[in-house]
Amino acid sequence: MKGQQPIESLVYELSRLPGIGRKTAQRLTYYLLDQDEKDVESLAQALVTAKRETKKCSLCSNYSDQDPCEICANPKRDGSILCVVEHPKDVATMEKTGKFNGYYHVLHGVIAPQRGLGPNELTIPELLTRLGDHDFKEVILATNPTQDGQLTALYLAQLIQPMGIKCTRISYGLPVGGDMEYYDAVTVGTALENRVEIKEKK
Amino acid sequence: MKGQQPIESLVYELSRLPGIGRKTAQRLTYYLLDQDEKDVESLAQALVTAKRETKKCSLCSNYSDQDPCEICANPKRDGSILCVVEHPKDVATMEKTGKFNGYYHVLHGVIAPQRGLGPNELTIPELLTRLGDHDFKEVILATNPTQDGQLTALYLAQLIQPMGIKCTRISYGLPVGGDMEYYDAVTVGTALENRVEIKEKK
Repeated sequence: MKGQQPIESLVYELSRLPGIGRKTAQRLTYYLLDQDEKDVESLAQALVTAKRETKKCSLCSNYSDQDPCEICANPKRDGSILCVVEHPKDVATMEKTGKFNGYYHVLHGVIAPQRGLGPNELTIPELLTRLGDHDFKEVILATNPTQDGQLTALYLAQLIQPMGIKCTRISYGLPVGGDMEYYDAVTVGTALENRVEIKEKK
Repeated sequence: MKGQQPIESLVYELSRLPGIGRKTAQRLTYYLLDQDEKDVESLAQALVTAKRETKKCSLCSNYSDQDPCEICANPKRDGSILCVVEHPKDVATMEKTGKFNGYYHVLHGVIAPQRGLGPNELTIPELLTRLGDHDFKEVILATNPTQDGQLTALYLAQLIQPMGIKCTRISYGLPVGGDMEYYDAVTVGTALENRVEIKEKK
């Protein structure tokens, strides 16, 4: 509709985002039109700044505005252990646990031949170079417990173990605080198989 | 976390949007970081352009990049009928029906004393001026069938009817294609009260 072109453009741009349909995009657009110009500009500025200033770290491939990133550049972390994750957001998730103090390597995906993703589309060559250059004792393969994630972990373990480096994976089971009733048979079955003996505390 | 500041800023800005929590904001942020710089810039540009170029029409208060807006400026529309809606998005919804060819007036809200919204916070003074200046025969009060929407419609009808202008409202009832089972007792009760005789087609 004539006169509505800037509104339509914004609806279109927002509806290209994942999980945002046309209705939501429209709702967001009218919400933004009701806001102060400076609030809208601060969102636009944050978009441009985040994209321009954030680069992949040349060591671990995580997103950061520094290179090497703040984790790779921190000499106080444990240089004997490397955690391999699928995606930058997984680094944030791991960091939040406060239980890991080694370094990371971000694959930026998993091997998925059906989607044309082979080892060279991921940062696997960089990972192997890094393992050759640096003396890691253990690699934690923290890909997601999906089929592609598990296959990628197995593939990596086959490449890394011959280098004399221990490969581990994070455990699968019921989420802490979850209720068995709500999880599928595969999850519960895995939790059953991976059962751990309850030891008396001394 | 140091090095993550531009990422955190974007997560924060996105999470201020309605219906977008921190998790979704994070997911969108990483999605955007994975995209081409030009795609992110085109979203940022659409935001700024929509906000800068879209103004309220001085007649109907709808959003448009023209003033008067493309509807108010169209002499081919029916000058005897005015449809009052709560919000600019309602104009888009009405236009999509293709069943209305008059003019609009956008209130930008409803009367809600509990939220400090009285007639003067809305475009009710402008509406009354417009009705005095122009010879409308009918005003359709198309506010939403909420309590505040209905009270606003009644309030407006009390002001407009003494001016010798017919006031109507859009009908309430079951949505077309809906199933009675899924609607609340008030909706079904209203549909029952507002029942219409089925007339034989001639």
